[in-house]
Amino acid sequence: MAHFARSTSLRGLSRATARVELASSRSSWSRVASTTQNRAYSAPASKAAAQKSSMSTKTFTALGVAAAAAAFWSQKPAIQTVECEAPPKKDEKKKSSKTAEDDKKRKLEGLTPDSPMRLRMEAFNKQLQAEITARLEKLDGVGKFKVDSWNRVEGGDGISMVMQDGKVFEKAGVGVSVVYGMLPPAAVAQMRAQHPNIAATKEAMPFFATGISCVIHPHNPNAPTVHFNYRYFELGSEDGGEPVSWWFGGGCDLTPTILYEEDAVHFHRVIKEACDKHDPRYYRDFKKWCDEYFYIPHRGERRGVGGIFFDDLDDKKPDELFAFVQTCGKAFLDQYVPIMERRKDMSFSDADKHWQQIRRGRYVEFNLVYDRGTKFGLLTPGARIESILMTMPLTARWEYMHEPDLKAHARLMETLRVPREWIPL
Amino acid sequence: MAHFARSTSLRGLSRATARVELASSRSSWSRVASTTQNRAYSAPASKAAAQKSSMSTKTFTALGVAAAAAAFWSQKPAIQTVECEAPPKKDEKKKSSKTAEDDKKRKLEGLTPDSPMRLRMEAFNKQLQAEITARLEKLDGVGKFKVDSWNRVEGGDGISMVMQDGKVFEKAGVGVSVVYGMLPPAAVAQMRAQHPNIAATKEAMPFFATGISCVIHPHNPNAPTVHFNYRYFELGSEDGGEPVSWWFGGGCDLTPTILYEEDAVHFHRVIKEACDKHDPRYYRDFKKWCDEYFYIPHRGERRGVGGIFFDDLDDKKPDELFAFVQTCGKAFLDQYVPIMERRKDMSFSDADKHWQQIRRGRYVEFNLVYDRGTKFGLLTPGARIESILMTMPLTARWEYMHEPDLKAHARLMETLRVPREWIPL
Repeated sequence: MAHFARSTSLRGLSRATARVELASSRSSWSRVASTTQNRAYSAPASKAAAQKSSMSTKTFTALGVAAAAAAFWSQKPAIQTVECEAPPKKDEKKKSSKTAEDDKKRKLEGLTPDSPMRLRMEAFNKQLQAEITARLEKLDGVGKFKVDSWNRVEGGDGISMVMQDGKVFEKAGVGVSVVYGMLPPAAVAQMRAQHPNIAATKEAMPFFATGISCVIHPHNPNAPTVHFNYRYFELGSEDGGEPVSWWFGGGCDLTPTILYEEDAVHFHRVIKEACDKHDPRYYRDFKKWCDEYFYIPHRGERRGVGGIFFDDLDDKKPDELFAFVQTCGKAFLDQYVPIMERRKDMSFSDADKHWQQIRRGRYVEFNLVYDRGTKFGLLTPGARIESILMTMPLTARWEYMHEPDLKAHARLMETLRVPREWIPL
Repeated sequence: MAHFARSTSLRGLSRATARVELASSRSSWSRVASTTQNRAYSAPASKAAAQKSSMSTKTFTALGVAAAAAAFWSQKPAIQTVECEAPPKKDEKKKSSKTAEDDKKRKLEGLTPDSPMRLRMEAFNKQLQAEITARLEKLDGVGKFKVDSWNRVEGGDGISMVMQDGKVFEKAGVGVSVVYGMLPPAAVAQMRAQHPNIAATKEAMPFFATGISCVIHPHNPNAPTVHFNYRYFELGSEDGGEPVSWWFGGGCDLTPTILYEEDAVHFHRVIKEACDKHDPRYYRDFKKWCDEYFYIPHRGERRGVGGIFFDDLDDKKPDELFAFVQTCGKAFLDQYVPIMERRKDMSFSDADKHWQQIRRGRYVEFNLVYDRGTKFGLLTPGARIESILMTMPLTARWEYMHEPDLKAHARLMETLRVPREWIPL
């Protein structure tokens, strides 16, 4: 029942959080020419800011879900004003905008290692997006990323970059978003369970979230689908100073159509090396969490061969955790590109392509039924639906009572039913 | 927020109801040869049984959802024992089985107009399934239905019939199921709000549900997808006599890829005529309910041109409502076959086929994200997943920022955004 409870928790949250006012306007969306942008700042690591109380990070409570959902929300900028059950007071709205306005000035002045974490994480995300999309375009050789960028009136912006029907990639989406908003009291209360330093309040609280999210579906069935997401969430203080609470979340996972053990081992080894630079327990704990998170209960299988997953990470100094997240994000191309180099031009049969389409169907099932971020986005009135669903495969297939035809296909299924330890611990 | 509240209600229910014990075993499943079966009884209409208290049937409360979910559950027979938060007492289980055993005897003796409604509705469903699948096979000319049937140890059985890759039909599924089980106190309590004649109890109560469900996806993009479902739910009395509460639910809706007004008008006219034979308000009320139910909030569109939808119907004598549901079920072939006859061999362009694939994607979104029955089934441990997801299209497509290329395609979208009155009221 673990997964069951988990998903119902998210629902409770959605009900509360979806009522946050998402004040912005459709006219603030702008469509940018189809080419890679680089609007990144440099984001040097800096010394620690506020020391946080230590707490468990690996349980899936309503709070954990709240954090993930609120953070993921950042990836779906609002495009219209949404009715509020209890609209935030005017001065609260101003406060939120003031932080955003102050941050704008800070960015114009230039970031330093002492700049607020939210600005450094935002800058990191944008730079990472630019680097990854440039490398993927090079790998594809033909396909280009289409770029959509936007600004939120209330504060924040985002960039969705999607390549569709490239030579190598069927569909690849890399999105970054930045959101300043007000979190309603119900959602604040849920977060308090996981982050006890949040004081009890009946008021909405200013929050900030930024995240980078990526899903890549290649054409060749020998080449795996991949996903990663790294995010930072901050609950603002009443006076606009140090945040009341903050945390990091994220992860990466690989979804093969045809299992190549060496690909799974490589993907895991690179991210394990990244984890090991920061904490010897991270890979073990977050690998397990990943196997749990990407489970499809109604199929009794995982969506792929895993990777890592973590959330509500606040038990070290912010800069230490930021450094960890940066290492993970920067590891992505090393995780994925070598696999793609050896798989993208392999020959394949019609049966392989057919099997890929069936597996794409399972990917859709996970995304629409279980993925916290997607579910939360779909239930959030005013969310930018195209940015949420850019993670969907271009094509998918559902056959009644389908069973794998080939041994190679059946081998994948064994691995999806019983997760394996790819790297000796 | 109406749809939002609706879906969160279902979730609350799922949590409670999914803990019902679904005692049966995987070995009770049997795969039958690929040919149309007819195991139907004749189901003559009879005089009224217990008179029910009148109550509103058109609100989407937690109760309404509970009713729909519990009824739809019947379409997903359990194949394994599921852990219970508070397992039903042994004698309760026996009672449930006793009703099932008694009903088996009644069926062997032959049904009469005085047989319990549950047996007459079951017989109607099975006969309708046989008639419809035979007619669809004739229409297809090539494709045959694959038949899977099963028995539940606790009581009940079902038949899933699926045609895949026929000449006319890409995928067509017609399922019937019959479930005897125990409903946990939490679910009983939720139903009480909509059916106040249910007495307060802290005990699980025996329930019965039977339904017929059908989704048909044709190959030709000029031919629309269609769906219908009719169901009967009964909450058993403690002594195995007259049911404590009972109700009917169901509906039908049409999902074109390319809009032909005359098809929508025909589909609505036939079901309106069916409704008008029973109550002059039915078509107007249930057409509106259908437009509300098949709404995809995150797309701001309906999944098709509607039809009718109703639930918790218990405000007339059972036989009157059974007669209504029979008229609707029997109207299905008249609603759909004439449309198929004129569309199945029409020529179409690559752009039409492409547009169909995009629309199939929306169908998947509705089914996985919003449809009560599908959601409930996916969250019910031990449910037969292949019977739940036989409603999915064979293929679907998701493109980033897709817009209709052709005027004919764009015309459909206008209709999906603002529902139309197809028949003058």
